[in-house]
Amino acid sequence: MIRNDKILIIGSVAVDCIETPFGKRAAVLGGSATFSSVSASFFNRNTGIVAVIGDDFPAAYRAVFKKRGIDIRGLRVIPGGKTFRWSGNYTGDMNSPVTLYTHLNVFKDFKPSIPEGERDAAFVFLANIDPDLQGMVLRQIKNPSLVVCDTMNYWIANKPRALKKLLKRIDIFLLNEGEARQLSGEHNLLKAARAILAYGTSSVVIKKGEYGVLFFSKRLMFQSPAYLLEDILDPTGAGDTFAGGMLGYLSGAGRINDASIRTSLIYGTIMASFAVQDFSVDALLRLRQADIRRRFDEFVRMTKFC
Amino acid sequence: MIRNDKILIIGSVAVDCIETPFGKRAAVLGGSATFSSVSASFFNRNTGIVAVIGDDFPAAYRAVFKKRGIDIRGLRVIPGGKTFRWSGNYTGDMNSPVTLYTHLNVFKDFKPSIPEGERDAAFVFLANIDPDLQGMVLRQIKNPSLVVCDTMNYWIANKPRALKKLLKRIDIFLLNEGEARQLSGEHNLLKAARAILAYGTSSVVIKKGEYGVLFFSKRLMFQSPAYLLEDILDPTGAGDTFAGGMLGYLSGAGRINDASIRTSLIYGTIMASFAVQDFSVDALLRLRQADIRRRFDEFVRMTKFC
Repeated sequence: MIRNDKILIIGSVAVDCIETPFGKRAAVLGGSATFSSVSASFFNRNTGIVAVIGDDFPAAYRAVFKKRGIDIRGLRVIPGGKTFRWSGNYTGDMNSPVTLYTHLNVFKDFKPSIPEGERDAAFVFLANIDPDLQGMVLRQIKNPSLVVCDTMNYWIANKPRALKKLLKRIDIFLLNEGEARQLSGEHNLLKAARAILAYGTSSVVIKKGEYGVLFFSKRLMFQSPAYLLEDILDPTGAGDTFAGGMLGYLSGAGRINDASIRTSLIYGTIMASFAVQDFSVDALLRLRQADIRRRFDEFVRMTKFC
Repeated sequence: MIRNDKILIIGSVAVDCIETPFGKRAAVLGGSATFSSVSASFFNRNTGIVAVIGDDFPAAYRAVFKKRGIDIRGLRVIPGGKTFRWSGNYTGDMNSPVTLYTHLNVFKDFKPSIPEGERDAAFVFLANIDPDLQGMVLRQIKNPSLVVCDTMNYWIANKPRALKKLLKRIDIFLLNEGEARQLSGEHNLLKAARAILAYGTSSVVIKKGEYGVLFFSKRLMFQSPAYLLEDILDPTGAGDTFAGGMLGYLSGAGRINDASIRTSLIYGTIMASFAVQDFSVDALLRLRQADIRRRFDEFVRMTKFC
């Protein structure tokens, strides 16, 4: 049984500098907790984040969370500290940016501590951080209903054991195509998924970017194309936006079963399709509820048969 | 109104030498007319081919067409001629083979002549040949109900004007992702599709291999993922098998509308998924009708939502 509809997201809040073939933006709002919480907030007004920033973090960006009704009691400010900064350049390849710099700053010493009042969250998203820290977070949460976990190539290469140990406690594990191959040692995605399930996660989502997503559990295999777009301005945050939409939908679905999981993957797809149509969270912040439903319905028309 | 259910396929019948990471086969049955007609024959026992071979063509391969009930009155044998031979190596990249040789042989002088009794075919597949010859074929067919046309990078590069002229008379134009970009000059596939529709074809199918297909007409946009496979032994002929399945299904659907087109694209996908599971047409020849329906139903379960 699902205890409540509270979503708790543990990840990064960052300031990004982004260049794509379509433009350049300096010092925009970024971070995995940012994209995923803004995305989830369209489905659930009981979404909180646990992250860390420096006191250089712009007030205007803090206001974004307020505006979206996101609980930032877990957003710790380190006096004298500097916020995590990342700079990526997508001009060579829209699918994999060249990192110009990663200044972890206050994020380097991030030891996520879940505020007492949020430890009962039923829905947890462990965004991409050190798998040891993701495990530490999980130990603080009281019996969650659904734990979704993301990772990245760096942790697969450097902390594979911690990651595999963590997977035994994960309900939905998200990773991209390349990471799935890296973690499993299998090129074929069906074999990769099977190997990853064997590590103990209840299910795995393999994100293929513009080619859609695959979902695997012991009893369900599901695949969906992505939403076709004419202009992709900035792919930063697409995966986290996907996760936020998925979790947001599931938190309101009443039950977590094959049908609601299928639909949640489509809502994740739809939210990601909005996110990449502008830099940072700009496109998400312009969204109205009706836009989401309209694009969802359009996606149904574009994919249904028989 | 659809006059009859006759399918006529104009293309190549070839002898291939294939190497993939999973093995090597010398002198196997190949060619666009072969794959597409064998595929179509599972839906329609009134399928004929127009092609050319030499008198070196093995009797055992001729028997394949007989076995599948394919009309080969239009299969011309050139006395003293040699059959078209192609050799491809996929060991570097399963998506794009290295051509070791192309011996056109009798195919070089192929001037397709449609037998008098087959000029009333309602369903026509112009497999990949010189667009001038494709046009010549079309002039011989009396008022077909549906004309499907394939092409390749070579014709896009060397006969773009003939191809664009031909497109005004095409109902469904098939090409792969790279060819769509090449022909349209647009990288984005939505823009590419729009540009290709502007040349005059009523609709276009962009084949993305393991990532599925896109369909565009003025009123319908449809997309589908591919059927997930664990082992792909030989991708040769996948596109032609797709076309044959699509056309085969449509020829029996009673009417050509958005709904039957959607379903036909899925049957094309399913047939192609079988074809690549063995070399040449071997997997197709082992198929039973029930296998097709079973995989189709499985595909429905793997992709449906809400």
